[in-house]
Amino acid sequence: MTNLAKTYEQPYYAVIFSSERTNGDHGYNMMSDKMVELASTQKGYLGVESARDENLGITVSYWETLDDITAWKANAAHQVAQRRGKEEWYSRFALRVCKVERNYMFEM
Amino acid sequence: MTNLAKTYEQPYYAVIFSSERTNGDHGYNMMSDKMVELASTQKGYLGVESARDENLGITVSYWETLDDITAWKANAAHQVAQRRGKEEWYSRFALRVCKVERNYMFEM
Repeated sequence: MTNLAKTYEQPYYAVIFSSERTNGDHGYNMMSDKMVELASTQKGYLGVESARDENLGITVSYWETLDDITAWKANAAHQVAQRRGKEEWYSRFALRVCKVERNYMFEM
Repeated sequence: MTNLAKTYEQPYYAVIFSSERTNGDHGYNMMSDKMVELASTQKGYLGVESARDENLGITVSYWETLDDITAWKANAAHQVAQRRGKEEWYSRFALRVCKVERNYMFEM
């Protein structure tokens, strides 16, 4: 479970991971929590936001540089999760690497 | 309810809107559906993805140019929704305007 991530002086980077799940858990929730925790220890990690409903899940992770994103993609434990994601957990997903050019935070 | 948006030849733009809701509906769901429908008729609109759970909602809309995003922000009906959002629906939100630099789609 995540809350809003902080905003930062630009530029920084966002990885938007949008996914449709297969049926059943197959260890997904445990691995998902583990990956959020592991990501948070990586160089350049800024934050993560995640929401899932019956249709779609969206996880956005924020990073200082493109190199930090490349390193996280290559992380060994993350590689295992990526492989299981394609084999077991996701029927479809889209991954978008973005440069955050403007941001704004509102608090009531 | 949305599914995965398409991926496109880069560059294009993403607006990541992450929000925490106040309690109760207050007309939110009706307006939210209406705004998704209205956005889809705007110049430069490419797609939208949205997911909400008990903690957080994330809506990502995709656009051809920054000017298209500026025009959508200034749309009169959208301005009304934005004002009600701050007054009634959201306790906190973050808005991030991003340039999509790479994307990848997986289908099982």
